[in-house]
Order: sequence, then C-alpha cells, then structure tokens
Amino acid sequence: MRVRILVSFKDSVLDPQGQTVKNALHTMGYDAVKDVRQGKVFEIDLAGATKKEAERLVPEIARRVLANPIIEKFEWDFLKGE
Amino acid sequence: MRVRILVSFKDSVLDPQGQTVKNALHTMGYDAVKDVRQGKVFEIDLAGATKKEAERLVPEIARRVLANPIIEKFEWDFLKGE
Repeated sequence: MRVRILVSFKDSVLDPQGQTVKNALHTMGYDAVKDVRQGKVFEIDLAGATKKEAERLVPEIARRVLANPIIEKFEWDFLKGE
Repeated sequence: MRVRILVSFKDSVLDPQGQTVKNALHTMGYDAVKDVRQGKVFEIDLAGATKKEAERLVPEIARRVLANPIIEKFEWDFLKGE
C-alpha cells in the first residue's frame, strides 16, 4: 500500500522558492504564469500496513515528521492501482 | 486555471532525502514504512491561459525549469474545481 503526501506552506505564509520560480518563468517569457507555490511530495510504501492502519499512521507521520504544522499544511491520498 | 506538477527522482536514482526520512521514521518506531521517496510539488496559476495552451506550456516549463530530465521525472494534472 503506497500513499502520497503533499506538504506546502499555508496560503498565508510567504513562499520565496515559488516566487523565485515565478520570476524566472517571467524572465523566460512565460507571462501566463500568475503565481507559483512550491512544496514537497513524499511517496511512502507502507507494505506492512492495512488501509485502516495507513489512515491512522499517515496523518500522524505527516504532523510529526513531514510538515511543520505552524506554517505548513498537508494533504494525502492512496496511490492508485495499489 | 491551476495545475499541479510533481517532480521526483527517476526510480533508478538514489534519493538520500527519502532515505533519511525513512531512517528517522524507523527510529521513531514506524516499522510499517518500507520506503520513502521525496520530491517537489509546484502549483502554478495559469490564469492567462486556455486549457490547450496549458497542455502545451506545462510540459515545456517542467522540462526547461522545474525538473532535471537527466535524473528527474515529472507528472502533472489540472487542479480540480477550476
């Protein structure tokens, strides 16, 4: 069983990496780009867990290890076909 | 129109960040975790583009700017509800 967890800054938090990418894209002529937000993605193989265990473990792992809940939010889902 | 682009190492490339997270999770007792891969996620607001333009622009931006095609792969999709 594999899951994908997306971690990104809360909307109220400045995202300097995303701003830098946006500025680079504008310099290259990609004017259709209005905003860029950058975050992290984790793909975790929970081979030893049932779906129910995963639903308990994944939010706990995200809060304790992957995201800083003060400034970051996360979302997650099971990866399809598994 | 908003899109989400996931960039991660190709499967054949070592992922030291993911390994470090996996080791940390094992130290904390999360033995169900068999593997962790870490990557980047970009959410881009293409307010000025049609869907067709986005389908041309996004892979180009991903290849030229967001991913290193030698060692990284990417996938992307439109964000729902937009």
